[in-house]
Amino acid sequence: MTMILGLVAGMLTTIAFIPQVVKTWKTKSADDLSLGMYVAFCLGVSLWLIYGFIVSDLPIIAANLVTLSLAITLLYFKLTYNNKTR
Amino acid sequence: MTMILGLVAGMLTTIAFIPQVVKTWKTKSADDLSLGMYVAFCLGVSLWLIYGFIVSDLPIIAANLVTLSLAITLLYFKLTYNNKTR
Repeated sequence: MTMILGLVAGMLTTIAFIPQVVKTWKTKSADDLSLGMYVAFCLGVSLWLIYGFIVSDLPIIAANLVTLSLAITLLYFKLTYNNKTR
Repeated sequence: MTMILGLVAGMLTTIAFIPQVVKTWKTKSADDLSLGMYVAFCLGVSLWLIYGFIVSDLPIIAANLVTLSLAITLLYFKLTYNNKTR
């Protein structure tokens, strides 16, 4: 039950990035996205992943694995679609 | 040690939203932010918080408490600064 709650929580904070990826990919506009946010976020999610492996917590591992790939995609979009800093 | 890793991870994925809040607040522009992302994200972070309380995991509780307040702020900005859907 707790495991299911964790998996649903992880699924939501993970799939949350899908509409952002789709939107940014469609509009090719990332001006309003913060570069600092995505750099810090990718770093943090990587550490969460390591933490998940250490405490052997499946929801944390699963969620952060997918979140990391989506966050890296957005970071790539941000760096590709505009050259302004921040 | 593991606790410290979790706290650093949580701190990073949490403070990551600060540059986004500052940027959006300064530019008053949230066009490129996805409404769907912030709705799903706020919901997911709320569930993470409940999960953290159930498994008594301090890093999860601390991180998601702050992340939730920042994500709600961004959701509010998105709803205030533009009326377009998505």
